[in-house]
Amino acid sequence: MNPLDNIRVVLVHTSNPGNIGAAARAMKNMGLSQLYLVAPHRYPADEATWRAANAADLLARAVVVETFDEAVAGCALVVGTSARERSIPWPLLDARAACQRIYGEARRHGVALVFGREDRGLTNEELQKCQLHINIPTDAAYSSLNLAMAVQVVAYELRMAHVSGQLPADPMADWDLDCADAEAIERLFTHMEQALGAMGFLKADAPKQTMTRLRRLFQRTRLDVMEVNILRGILTSAQYWVRKAGGDGRDR
Amino acid sequence: MNPLDNIRVVLVHTSNPGNIGAAARAMKNMGLSQLYLVAPHRYPADEATWRAANAADLLARAVVVETFDEAVAGCALVVGTSARERSIPWPLLDARAACQRIYGEARRHGVALVFGREDRGLTNEELQKCQLHINIPTDAAYSSLNLAMAVQVVAYELRMAHVSGQLPADPMADWDLDCADAEAIERLFTHMEQALGAMGFLKADAPKQTMTRLRRLFQRTRLDVMEVNILRGILTSAQYWVRKAGGDGRDR
Repeated sequence: MNPLDNIRVVLVHTSNPGNIGAAARAMKNMGLSQLYLVAPHRYPADEATWRAANAADLLARAVVVETFDEAVAGCALVVGTSARERSIPWPLLDARAACQRIYGEARRHGVALVFGREDRGLTNEELQKCQLHINIPTDAAYSSLNLAMAVQVVAYELRMAHVSGQLPADPMADWDLDCADAEAIERLFTHMEQALGAMGFLKADAPKQTMTRLRRLFQRTRLDVMEVNILRGILTSAQYWVRKAGGDGRDR
Repeated sequence: MNPLDNIRVVLVHTSNPGNIGAAARAMKNMGLSQLYLVAPHRYPADEATWRAANAADLLARAVVVETFDEAVAGCALVVGTSARERSIPWPLLDARAACQRIYGEARRHGVALVFGREDRGLTNEELQKCQLHINIPTDAAYSSLNLAMAVQVVAYELRMAHVSGQLPADPMADWDLDCADAEAIERLFTHMEQALGAMGFLKADAPKQTMTRLRRLFQRTRLDVMEVNILRGILTSAQYWVRKAGGDGRDR
């Protein structure tokens, strides 16, 4: 089974139905599907539906209950989002570390991830029903995240836990062409030196240094096979024009 | 200086002013401060102001411009958000890896992080003005993130890079020269298209595609200021030989 299906998002006493819709969309974007609403104000509401966009199905399946306890029933891990420092410290992880743990546990059992009221968050009593608190790092100058944004960040971290190890940090991982090999690259540089020489371009004070800088440029860029062909085509074209003009670069 | 102050968020042709306000709030929550708006529809608007909540100051300082180029002027790294698979792959990183790189580069120079239209994202032309594309992993069943949510996720990853204290892997961290900025790069491409046109090199079957491939090559290589000068010198030299031969490319 997909661990993401074992994670429920619980929104407690949400005031703004737009946030419920936006949270539903954020969940579906990231592959979450279980939404629980504890005594939402003004719900159902048109604003929730339009903010949900193509996640209206998820919203329609949302489970509406009266109490916190009903919403977390059956879950073996209950995690509460907490912005504030508490007088009694509770186990607390940032969103990234918490989501790695949540994802791991969701392989085995249900997890509830609880978000509080827009204005006051979760009460101390609610936070003390959680095994773990989760905090999203923010700037001290303005630390209050919109509720749906907080759902988005946590859902994103759960998705990252889901796909981790599958996304290489190689920006050319899905390239459409092979990288040119070392010999093709050297032939390009030989051709470049000949053509730029004929054009008179390397006759300035520091010909060697110019070629070194061109080497550094094209070596670090990891040229693909077609790019080598294009560059050599440009060089060949330049050589044609130099010949046609009767020059060999020495008259410049 | 704080690298986060060197990163500008650029929203292109935003339709819904609520998204502008929500993006401003997300930015301030995460410690970003530089917002640029390219030809926003229906803006200023009350909805932007109330969605911004306590980030109204950031919204009031937003720079409104008419074109993409104005918004990225002065930045040495331009990063575009891209949801779709492209026919020609461009250097692409997920939000986490991209933000580590962006944060690292923002120690040295300005970075523009560009978000497209709600319905269609960035155009191919706009994406080809970027050195790097960034993708937020989503579920295939519903991959279209709300614009402000996308800003939130990326801003969050930038904050995580900020608080992690780790130096990102930046192969050009100790470079001897400044990176060329966006305007210098665009002038290079304009010059390149003119020179290759005069040489007859772009008259083959697919002139546009050749320029796209050249853009991809030189965008991903992060040209420094001297390299731009060398390349423009080569182009000027080629133009000299074409003129001297009395040709304008049409006789090839």
